[in-house]
Amino acid sequence: MIKLLVTGTVAVDSVETPFGKKDSVFGGSASYFSYSASFFSPVSMMAVVGEDFPDEYRKILLERKIDLKNLQVLAGGKTFRWKGKYGFDLNVAHTLETHLNVLQDFAPSLKDDRDVEYLFLANIDPDIQLKLIDEVHHAKTKLIAVDTMNFWIHSKKQALLNVLKRVHLIVLNDAETRDLTGESNLIRGARKIQEMGPDKVIIKKGEHGVLFFDGKYFAALPAYPLESVFDPTGAGDTFAGGFMGYVAKTGDLGLDNLKKAVAYGTIMASFVVEDFGLDRMRRLTNAEIDDRLKNFKTFSTF
Amino acid sequence: MIKLLVTGTVAVDSVETPFGKKDSVFGGSASYFSYSASFFSPVSMMAVVGEDFPDEYRKILLERKIDLKNLQVLAGGKTFRWKGKYGFDLNVAHTLETHLNVLQDFAPSLKDDRDVEYLFLANIDPDIQLKLIDEVHHAKTKLIAVDTMNFWIHSKKQALLNVLKRVHLIVLNDAETRDLTGESNLIRGARKIQEMGPDKVIIKKGEHGVLFFDGKYFAALPAYPLESVFDPTGAGDTFAGGFMGYVAKTGDLGLDNLKKAVAYGTIMASFVVEDFGLDRMRRLTNAEIDDRLKNFKTFSTF
Repeated sequence: MIKLLVTGTVAVDSVETPFGKKDSVFGGSASYFSYSASFFSPVSMMAVVGEDFPDEYRKILLERKIDLKNLQVLAGGKTFRWKGKYGFDLNVAHTLETHLNVLQDFAPSLKDDRDVEYLFLANIDPDIQLKLIDEVHHAKTKLIAVDTMNFWIHSKKQALLNVLKRVHLIVLNDAETRDLTGESNLIRGARKIQEMGPDKVIIKKGEHGVLFFDGKYFAALPAYPLESVFDPTGAGDTFAGGFMGYVAKTGDLGLDNLKKAVAYGTIMASFVVEDFGLDRMRRLTNAEIDDRLKNFKTFSTF
Repeated sequence: MIKLLVTGTVAVDSVETPFGKKDSVFGGSASYFSYSASFFSPVSMMAVVGEDFPDEYRKILLERKIDLKNLQVLAGGKTFRWKGKYGFDLNVAHTLETHLNVLQDFAPSLKDDRDVEYLFLANIDPDIQLKLIDEVHHAKTKLIAVDTMNFWIHSKKQALLNVLKRVHLIVLNDAETRDLTGESNLIRGARKIQEMGPDKVIIKKGEHGVLFFDGKYFAALPAYPLESVFDPTGAGDTFAGGFMGYVAKTGDLGLDNLKKAVAYGTIMASFVVEDFGLDRMRRLTNAEIDDRLKNFKTFSTF
């Protein structure tokens, strides 16, 4: 049985922030998610890369308990590439270039083991997300969660709505919540999303923290305070990785534990933005995570 | 000795929101502050009104433990009037008209008792705030706090900076923090404000909650979640009233207690926005406050 399975993108990024510029950064939603989740639980990655996928990137994933059995390498294909830029408002990424490359023909297909306990559908075409839901045997599945972005809300709304009917939890940001529901009030927005399918909704508000809804239950956590954010790429995926990794590790879907998982997600995201790509995560220790979580608890409790 | 003294405006407002319109609403920063603080501590109000000040408004203040000994009535004068409008983004008030009237000649002057334990300088001309600081005997003063707005940051910056040198705490919102400091990051902004004088800084972020700084210490609390805000006028003053009232009641300036005071401020603000002017506050009971604080604690703790 697969403990925690993720599908999403594996990418080569070019990133420009007010603090620097870097070409060929290892990125993608599945990469960030997996690296972050691996601090808590083994992860299996269902994704696709081209023949040009650098061996050093593969080695980065293999530093952690990340199973690459389901990582497809498309002969003759090129890996997905994204080029983006951030202004001083680091909350908004401006996409300069997108080369889908091998993503255009990606059909997720599980090699052998189809029993999955925790499934995360990171940001990728909702048709691909649906396909993977169909691939999985659900008898032992405890939680299916999904992430998405404005691009899919606008271009593939029906497919996305079909995904929503089949997941327990959605993670999205405030702008996406407003786009998906037409509601400016985020609490009313979350209620509308619950009517679309998932009982659990996590709304990420960047520097303003997170809202968490589970049925009628509600929780709000602030962000971890950072005086400087270096590169925000992957913050959302890293949040989701910390959240799902902690849930998979503990196997506890109770409200208190899910709230703790939100806190772990917040902490993981606060690290990844401190350097380009996965650079900060590769230096990260469990002691640092524990330490920051302890601080977080202190300043958000009264 | 005066337990808690506030100076600020007493006004007759006209308010328009997407949900309704009302002329002649009893308002002003000192009114909202006092009414809110009075749930925790006796308050003394240092303010000015005109001869036209309606008797029914005076009676509203006298419903609570609000001492009006220092409320000046200017013969022949007219009470300060403000007319404002809110769009669907209820975070921003659009001022349509301001008639300063009696405020133009207001010189705060304490009748007899000049010993003040807790002093709050609500939003008003910083020259008036300074004048009251000079009026007060400080031997027994435990905390001086100030509120301001963008108008004073732009038109009377030097006077405001003089005020900041003489207060322990400032309450302001995120836009004001950025305006005052030129910093987009609120944490760096708060550090800059601390260099201007006050060791304690409270940054209100509306629906995103509050950041609280005390020396090197930091705390963050979410807002109380409301599915609908009816009239946001006075939310900031009501927050400050709850905060200062609770501090005055407990007399404890320790970090844990100040954080609890921030929580009480948050709760009081969540009530005032549920109706026009002070209408919701006049129906408010201590049991409702306790109840909402308990909920707030539950959903913001992990």
